[in-house]
Amino acid sequence: MPYFDAASSAPPHPVARQALLAALDEGWADPARLYREGRQARLLLDAARQTAAEAVGCRPDELVFTPSGTRAVHQGIAGALAGRRRVGRGLVISAVEHSAVLHAATAHTTAGGTVTELGVDRTGRVSPAAYEEALRQGGDPIALACLQSANHEVGTEQPVAEVAAICRESSVPLLVDAAQSLPWGRVADGWSLLTASAHKWGGPAGVGLLAVRKGVRFAPQGPLDERESGRSAGFENLPAIVAAAASLRAVRQEAESEALRLRALVEGIRTRVPELVPDVEVVGDPLRRLPHLVTFSCLYVDGETLLHELDRAEFAVSSGSSCTSSTLTPSHVLRAMGVLSEGNVRVSLPRSTTAEDVDRFLAVLPGIVASVREKLGAPVARRAGPDTAAGPGDAVGAGAAVTAEVPALTVDALGKRCPLPVIELAKVIDSVPVGAVISVLADDDAARLDIPAWCTMRGQEFVGERAAQRGVAYWVRRA
Amino acid sequence: MPYFDAASSAPPHPVARQALLAALDEGWADPARLYREGRQARLLLDAARQTAAEAVGCRPDELVFTPSGTRAVHQGIAGALAGRRRVGRGLVISAVEHSAVLHAATAHTTAGGTVTELGVDRTGRVSPAAYEEALRQGGDPIALACLQSANHEVGTEQPVAEVAAICRESSVPLLVDAAQSLPWGRVADGWSLLTASAHKWGGPAGVGLLAVRKGVRFAPQGPLDERESGRSAGFENLPAIVAAAASLRAVRQEAESEALRLRALVEGIRTRVPELVPDVEVVGDPLRRLPHLVTFSCLYVDGETLLHELDRAEFAVSSGSSCTSSTLTPSHVLRAMGVLSEGNVRVSLPRSTTAEDVDRFLAVLPGIVASVREKLGAPVARRAGPDTAAGPGDAVGAGAAVTAEVPALTVDALGKRCPLPVIELAKVIDSVPVGAVISVLADDDAARLDIPAWCTMRGQEFVGERAAQRGVAYWVRRA
Repeated sequence: MPYFDAASSAPPHPVARQALLAALDEGWADPARLYREGRQARLLLDAARQTAAEAVGCRPDELVFTPSGTRAVHQGIAGALAGRRRVGRGLVISAVEHSAVLHAATAHTTAGGTVTELGVDRTGRVSPAAYEEALRQGGDPIALACLQSANHEVGTEQPVAEVAAICRESSVPLLVDAAQSLPWGRVADGWSLLTASAHKWGGPAGVGLLAVRKGVRFAPQGPLDERESGRSAGFENLPAIVAAAASLRAVRQEAESEALRLRALVEGIRTRVPELVPDVEVVGDPLRRLPHLVTFSCLYVDGETLLHELDRAEFAVSSGSSCTSSTLTPSHVLRAMGVLSEGNVRVSLPRSTTAEDVDRFLAVLPGIVASVREKLGAPVARRAGPDTAAGPGDAVGAGAAVTAEVPALTVDALGKRCPLPVIELAKVIDSVPVGAVISVLADDDAARLDIPAWCTMRGQEFVGERAAQRGVAYWVRRA
Repeated sequence: MPYFDAASSAPPHPVARQALLAALDEGWADPARLYREGRQARLLLDAARQTAAEAVGCRPDELVFTPSGTRAVHQGIAGALAGRRRVGRGLVISAVEHSAVLHAATAHTTAGGTVTELGVDRTGRVSPAAYEEALRQGGDPIALACLQSANHEVGTEQPVAEVAAICRESSVPLLVDAAQSLPWGRVADGWSLLTASAHKWGGPAGVGLLAVRKGVRFAPQGPLDERESGRSAGFENLPAIVAAAASLRAVRQEAESEALRLRALVEGIRTRVPELVPDVEVVGDPLRRLPHLVTFSCLYVDGETLLHELDRAEFAVSSGSSCTSSTLTPSHVLRAMGVLSEGNVRVSLPRSTTAEDVDRFLAVLPGIVASVREKLGAPVARRAGPDTAAGPGDAVGAGAAVTAEVPALTVDALGKRCPLPVIELAKVIDSVPVGAVISVLADDDAARLDIPAWCTMRGQEFVGERAAQRGVAYWVRRA
């Protein structure tokens, strides 16, 4: 079964498996003990740290192992903020960081700190100038800036070197969450703290990395012990640490050739999906991106059903659509980018992926999307791009005066979940005269993102939101 | 090589190894995902929780997995204290808890909370009456009480049921650190929170348990995510969790017979060590104790050298002596018990231990202790118990007036590390008249514990401490 969700968790690398097995026998004792088994465990731990530090590009004594990438982020942000508490309590992050960073930011706000969240462009990329401005702003002085090396949902690479240079100029430490990019190579120089997660590169779960450059003020928070230089409490997850380091070295050795190979496969998906499936938006930067990851959104499709049908066809992918999450809100990344969230599919290829796997995926996808659309009663599919050939159709309410203030038609989509409000809108857009406004009443949060995104895709004009007794009225003018 | 330090970390149980291997293939995906690999991981996680909950004696939805026993303790204490912040900020612990509890208590004090630390008797056992008094005291109302189920250094079982009943009467939740006892059986009913650590029972590193009874107010602290019911952030350490649960069930199935077998071996050590090695104090409760653990201290012996020599003889044990730790302070447990810390040896037998292993240990121990003592120039060994046959010897300073206020002799042991101050004292005790006082000047912290302990063992009178220009003067009257 082709597994296309490496960005969630990569299948174990064969080297990880081997190393784990070996270390199970040799590395179960306490590395703090003086007897033979303890010394052996210490040797394994030291060697793993050396290997991981080399891959990260830091000194071994700058790197500690944490129980997960999430904890590395939490501990890194808390320690860096506490280390510079006297300077100020400002934290700058991008709007498209991993939720671990957002949760740490929320905890900081709760504790009385200030958080500045910087937007991104439509490709998901931050602007170095925005960081520059945030660091120079008045108010609470900035203690720490955070930026991911590449986005986990759309694959866009961030301008880390530029942002690092800006941070250095302002003497503000920069924490780089390198969870998605570390398997592919070192992060550009200039970071102060770096975090990563082993199960993202085919290492085992239970291992994160936290590197803190010498000279960066760092005050570890919470109850601590003598483990990991006092920066990560609790008995070391040793066999897994050994496997994590060994597999990181292994994936790095293969990284260049795998990146070439997977980039070609991804390029194929980027090109062919919009050819094969009508009404699709491929999102993320087309060039400055991770080699193995591509994300697209399908109009008039409910993400959960799409994932379910792909799973039935034996393809494992993930989605940032609201209907696939327990919170019923679309991915904060897609929202920050302002792109369509409905029918969202993230394909992230693990190292074993073949061209045949991708071809099979491209063979089944169009039929699956079409069948989901058919079940939902979506409008007949057409190629992406502004409508041109559509006639005025049956002008429902055409007798009414058409002004910006009085919608020619109101679509009641209250209680209907994504993608139904958009489908209802698409069904009637041709029924009003050009220049007339349709008001879509909806209470699904995804509509706020998807109705404007639909307008952009279909060449219609999004007028804006209006208050309504229930839900929100989204006004769209037929172009 | 016989490994006698199971209380630090137990060698992996064969079932843990098998389960880990199986789960590596089946349990590497994200259990929060909807596709097949994710559902499979979720099933494994749910099954592991069910198994662990059964062993603990709680509902599966009361139990979460944490990255280690230490983190379970830290998260458990922080969450319970925060959950009852409105009631008060008092925390009651025993003086012999694991350092994870002590570190959490320190963090609580730093954050403005109050900590009451309760002493233990000479066997290391707490008094339920002390808990009762602490809960009824004035001042900051008690938010949480903590008590280990059994001590990790001396094996003494604590009166958990009695303390739990007292806590219930005062409506104070009780957190039981069951790290050492959980492999042997469920903790007595009445606890509100319970913590444990998988590598203590032969499970893998990287897995702790935190159980919180329904109805206990609990507010998880720090940045959190949706993992583990919002009580333990970060991607689940899944293959290890599966192995932890499977091995816990396996050790429980063997627990009764193994306890019988190991208890007999430990009983042999308890009886024979004092017969084979002069000047030894076996510590901990002789009956109410863990089946596999025994601790003794050898007078006139430096713990680090002893461990080193035992390691050369291929025996891995641990020690609470100050000279084996980086902090140069003796174990807080031995200190709280008021027993000898020098030459301290903890033997904790893993399940594979044979009678032959123990016999070999008992065969090499006396020679090793004797050789360490010889190198240190310790007094000629004798059986434990008060001196009776010793004559007055050369009465150095015998002409001086012998009063409690003027020592007949001062021994300068400044700058000398444990066990040298005690050895110096032992060398000269017979040189002063009966009733005369010797003052031992020492600046090694261990002397505060070991000189009184030596007096108890040798039947001499410890008069007390006196201020000195450098270090402390310990006064001992020859009996």
